[in-house]
This record gives sequence, C-alpha cells and structure tokens, in this order.
Amino acid sequence: MFKYRLAVPGPTPLPPEVVAAATIPMEDERTHSYAAVFNRVLDNLKRTLLTRNDLLLFASSMTGAFEGAVQNLFSPGDRVLVVNNGAFGQRWVELATTFGLDVVEVAEQWGRPVDMRRVAEAVAAHPDLVAAIAVHCETSTATVNDMRAFGQATRGIVSVVDTASGVGACELRTDEWGLDVVVAGCQKALMTPPGLAFASISPRAWALHERAALPRYYFDWDRTRDALRADIARTPWTPAVSLINQLDVALRRLHHEGIENVFVRHVQLGRMVRAGVLGMGLELLSADDDRNAAVTAVTLPAAIDARVLVDHLLDQYGVQIVDSGGPLAARVVRLGHCGYVDLLDAVALLSAFGLALRDLGCAADVGGGVAAALAVAAAHREEARRAPALTAQLRPHDRADRADAYELVRSPS
Amino acid sequence: MFKYRLAVPGPTPLPPEVVAAATIPMEDERTHSYAAVFNRVLDNLKRTLLTRNDLLLFASSMTGAFEGAVQNLFSPGDRVLVVNNGAFGQRWVELATTFGLDVVEVAEQWGRPVDMRRVAEAVAAHPDLVAAIAVHCETSTATVNDMRAFGQATRGIVSVVDTASGVGACELRTDEWGLDVVVAGCQKALMTPPGLAFASISPRAWALHERAALPRYYFDWDRTRDALRADIARTPWTPAVSLINQLDVALRRLHHEGIENVFVRHVQLGRMVRAGVLGMGLELLSADDDRNAAVTAVTLPAAIDARVLVDHLLDQYGVQIVDSGGPLAARVVRLGHCGYVDLLDAVALLSAFGLALRDLGCAADVGGGVAAALAVAAAHREEARRAPALTAQLRPHDRADRADAYELVRSPS
Repeated sequence: MFKYRLAVPGPTPLPPEVVAAATIPMEDERTHSYAAVFNRVLDNLKRTLLTRNDLLLFASSMTGAFEGAVQNLFSPGDRVLVVNNGAFGQRWVELATTFGLDVVEVAEQWGRPVDMRRVAEAVAAHPDLVAAIAVHCETSTATVNDMRAFGQATRGIVSVVDTASGVGACELRTDEWGLDVVVAGCQKALMTPPGLAFASISPRAWALHERAALPRYYFDWDRTRDALRADIARTPWTPAVSLINQLDVALRRLHHEGIENVFVRHVQLGRMVRAGVLGMGLELLSADDDRNAAVTAVTLPAAIDARVLVDHLLDQYGVQIVDSGGPLAARVVRLGHCGYVDLLDAVALLSAFGLALRDLGCAADVGGGVAAALAVAAAHREEARRAPALTAQLRPHDRADRADAYELVRSPS
Repeated sequence: MFKYRLAVPGPTPLPPEVVAAATIPMEDERTHSYAAVFNRVLDNLKRTLLTRNDLLLFASSMTGAFEGAVQNLFSPGDRVLVVNNGAFGQRWVELATTFGLDVVEVAEQWGRPVDMRRVAEAVAAHPDLVAAIAVHCETSTATVNDMRAFGQATRGIVSVVDTASGVGACELRTDEWGLDVVVAGCQKALMTPPGLAFASISPRAWALHERAALPRYYFDWDRTRDALRADIARTPWTPAVSLINQLDVALRRLHHEGIENVFVRHVQLGRMVRAGVLGMGLELLSADDDRNAAVTAVTLPAAIDARVLVDHLLDQYGVQIVDSGGPLAARVVRLGHCGYVDLLDAVALLSAFGLALRDLGCAADVGGGVAAALAVAAAHREEARRAPALTAQLRPHDRADRADAYELVRSPS
C-alpha cells in the first residue's frame, strides 16, 4: 500500500481546508456576499504578485489567459520579442505566430537561463518592438529566468511575463521590477484545482490595449474589467464558483504564511531536492541555483528511460513525477516541489525516487542522497536558530493557525 | 510551513476516501439500504479479526466495549486473570476491580512481553478462574504480547483480548488461536475517526454470558444481538451513522489490500522505524521484534525530556507523536505507524524526529538513521523482486484501485 503523492510542477496537492472548501454549498454568484469573496480573491492575487495593477480573473486554463494577453495587447503585424529557452517559451512563439505577430526570438539552449543582456540588445536593435514576452519559470526544464533583469531590459516597451509555475513559489515583484502584464493560474503553487487563470495589467499595458485590433470575446479585458466594476463585482461570464471558493481559502492560507516566507520555503525545498539528487550521484539538468525553487529536473543515467522511471514510481511507490516532454523526454525527469509541500515531503519524494532508481538497476545512493537533503534541512534549522529574523520567516506549525484555516471554510464570506 | 502529520498509535490519518465518506448525506438508519452498509461493516470486521463468531458494534470509545465485556461476562466475585505489563493491562485490573471481580494478576515489567507459560501456570494454579484477559498490543510501551500462546495457555477458560492498537496492524487470528472475546475499536489501524467499538464473541463466551449477573444496559450483548437479527439489522440505540459509513469505506479499502498484506506492511514499517531509531544512535524501550508492528517506543537520552520533544516536534515540524504517559512519561516517546501509513511516511517521521532531537541538542545521526531505514526498505523491495509470492503480497499502488475506492464513496450501499 502506498499513498498517492503528487510531485509534478502542477497540479499540486491541495491543503485539507482547500479540499473542504469544495464542499461549500453551490451559490449564485450575483450576490454581494459572493462578490465579497471574489473581491478578496482579486486582492489576495495582487498581494501574491506584489502589484497594485488591475487584476482580471478568467475561468480557463492558463493557456486561455496567455491567448487573451495576445488578443488584448496586439494588432496583426505587431513586432514582439519572445524569450525562448524551453517548451513554454516555444508555446509563446507559436501563439504569437498564430495571431499574425512578427516574432523576434531570443533563444537559449534548454536548461539554461536566458542572459537578459541579450534581450536588452534585441530591444535596442528593434525599435519597432511593442512588447517582450518571457517565461518566468520554464517548467519544462526547471530553469528560472531572471525577471528583475527582464524588467530592466524591457524598460521602454510592454513586458509580458508568464509565471505559470513561478507564481507563489519563485520570487516575483511585479511593480518593483516593472512588469506590465503578468499571467498565471492557480493549480501550481497556489494550491487550487485547475480551471482559473489571471492577468495583472499595468497602465502602460492598458494603453497598448487601447489600440490592439485583434478580435477577442471571451478573454476581452474591457468586458472583464467592466464586470469587475459593476455594483456587484463578478466576471462577465459564469465564474467557476467552487474553484474561486477554494482559491480564496488557499490564498488566505498563503498570506497567513506570508508571501516572503513562501518564497524562502521554496528556496529551501529546492536546495534540499538538488542536494538529494546530487547526493545520490545523479545530475541536474539546470544549474544548482536558488532561483530554481519550484521544480528540479534530473538528467538520468543513460541506462534509465525517464518514462519507465515515471511509470515505475507511480506503480510501485504511488509517487507521481513527470518526464520533461519534448526532445528530452527519455532522458530527463522533473520533480515538482511547489505549493503545499514541506521539507518532509521533499524527503519522502527523494526516498521514493532513489528506491525506484535502484529497482531499475541504477546504483543510486538513496541513503546518501536523503542524508544530504537532511543535512541541508538541518543547516536551515541551525540558521533559523542563529538569526532571529530568519526564525520569524520560518513560521512554525501552529495549531491556532489550523483552526483559523478551517474556520475560513465554514464562513466563506 | 509544515503539514500536520499524525503519528500516534491512534487516532490515525484517514485515507481521503474515508474523509470523503463523512460527506455522504445523513440518513435514517432504519432502512434496508443502510442495513446493507451496516451488515457489510460487521462482515468486514469479522474478516479483519479472522473469525466467524458473532460481532457486535457499539457507538462508544473502546473503553465502553471493554466495560461491556466485563458487564456481560461476569458476576460479582468471579475470579479472572489479567495479564498486566503496561497502562492498558492496568486499566483492565481497575475495570475488573471496579465491578467486584477477584483479579489474579500476571504482571511483567513495562516494555517486556508477558511469558505466556506464566499464564498457563496461573490457570493451572487457580481452577476457579472463569476467564483470562490480555492486551494484545500494549500501546503504552509498544510491546505486543503473543496472543497465539495466550490462546493456548487459556484453553479451558474464556479468553478475552483487548486488541485496541493491534487490530488491523498486528497479526491476530481469532478463531485459529481460540480467542473467545476480542474487543477493539476503529480509530487506530482501521483508519476511521474515534467513536466506534466492537467485540467478537465465541459460543463459549456466550455460554459464560448466560449466567453473568452484573447489571448492564447500554452495552448489553443480548439487546445488541437482538437488534442485529431484526428484519432491518441495526444497533439497539442510535448508531453513529456517519462513522459507520466511514468505517465501511475504510474496511473495504483494507480488504482490497488484503488483511495478510496489511500485516506484512506493518511488520515492514516497524522494522524500518526501529532501524531508523537505532541508526540514529537511540534506544528502543521494547525489543526489536517483528511482532511490535504498530508502534515504536524510544527511550530518550537523559538530557531530553520526552514532553519537550513532543511539543517541539509538533510546533516546529507539524508532526504529532506522544510520550508514553505514566511512570515513563518524561523518558519515552512513542511513534505510531499503524493504519493509513506507508514507507514514505515512516521516512518523513524519522526525519522530523531526528531533526527535532538535534534542535534540542541531542547528537542524533539523522541522516544515518534515515539511511538505515531506507536500507531496510530497499531490502524489502529486493526480497519482493526475488520472491514472486511476496511480490503478490506487496501490492503496488494502482490507479484503478483508487478509482474504485472513490466509487465506494459515491454509492454507499
């Protein structure tokens, strides 16, 4: 008997109070009571993105909100820059091309972050660029691009950030870093089932939107903002009522922990998992860098097929990881550690991963790897003891907090 | 942020489908449809105890069913033998004394199993004994008494077994081992919230019951059996409707895994946890014995107060363990690993336990201990690969099984 343990970059495990929020009775959204929940969700999403910009919520997968960003920002023939160092960068190239945009690509090898000086050079070289698009956490390779540098490199044009697997895990400071449009969803570090996506939109992006001629309806930003500003705030189309209730509980939990603490936790999880992987004698696809906090990509020994390992881990240990898809599908697996994940989950994940590798004939040092991860955890504890400031960041488990969290479920508004 | 992880000998974590079963709409129990659920629960409890004897279910804590066994089996002045090597053996002494019984105690030091030859000698020495009572898993010290030998030692009289923390974790073969009354509850290895207790009753025990003169009402076995045999089977008093629904799902899950596999899993968990504890350089209170499969008691270094460690583990790691209570409360902690627990839970538990000990200044070798536990797990995997028979016992995680389990929730009858 093994429990099902979800360790992909998304969807991610739900906190029990988020599961319980799905049992709140279905309700009509056209009420002041539900609008209060809806508004609180929007406010808490802004706090998550560290922005005061407008925030629009959509009932869709994230890709819908990506498409919406293209539709609402551009006209056919507009020239846009796309940072491309993985499957999701490639998706933006396809999306932009599909809508008749003229794409200037800044490409990098998969597994390496893009040097944002190259973006600055491209912006300088193409004065007709209206916007630049970048993926924050390139989930396909567990590589996080530097969004602060991206914001600086694109100062004169509209910057668009896809932070699908970054939001709520990897540091992102929308306003401080000057990011105009930030698009994401809720099924990764935001600990909510899939079905909700959102975008934050700066005044400069609204100005670009004013002249955007691409056709759009469902994802139209004006209609969405108008509905938000109505007497009873809502979405222009039927909202995903239960998912919004769940997101409400998840975000309140997240901000109870504190967004800065959430960033620290993910950095520490990333360090542990990378130390564990390296300690087993395996290789990382991307750098051993604190920025890569949400997901870890492991390059397997040649004798192991990633897809066989993924199946074996699920069948024999109940642990769901994922290969990297695309050209590296057979060689690379990805371990997700974002959202409702603590250090003991990281230890369990590494243990199953190592045991499964051994089952398949790989001489992974399971005990050594897990011990290395625990040494990292112990060092974090030691740091916390020595630095009171960090102690405050490492919020302890607190029975009162749990009670509060469940209380949220009982009174949704 | 740490998840709440429950690792006491009971209550224990609930499988998600058992949690979900609590959301089945409340219903009147006086229906054929609910009686079908109720009967299935009784049948599956019998399969769990490996008995064909009658089985009676009560809405109560286990202690209620213990008291009921005394009330239904004895008359004031009856002489009974009580095996006493821990807090729960002691409870039976108190219970028997409270009801005016004449107790012959076979005592042993806490942490040591009782030698059942001493029980046989006492039975021979006291021909007026009508029954003998023993605790299967003495939860207070993580010591499992040999119930097969107890059954043999008490051949001529009624044997009563308290298997509170044993049932569904530690091997117990009611009929094969000749155990007349077996009393337990559902909040430990049976993966259900507290509030349900049960007793299996052999023909010999029913015969003793015939002449039992102690007063009783709520726990009266005749009333309970009569209600069971009515057109619509039920309990004589209001049953704990939702708990029975949850127990139904839990037992179907347990028997889907297979009771023999469940025993094997707990033996393996016990081995892992003991190896981890010893590997950290700590001491066990009771023997490193496969029989001690549900809970492990650790004797701490003199500098560590068990109650401080328990609080620290919960506050700092979200892991709930428990001290041993009674005279050893300051010196011994107990790690529960029964019920909905897999090997990755054992690794997580040991990791938190070791880190917490280090926090408190104890030089526990966390990495070494966890590596030792993982080596045991790897050996079990290796065994399973070499022995197809054992492979069948080690049932893999199976997506179809999970779907079935959730299906149960949707159609309770």
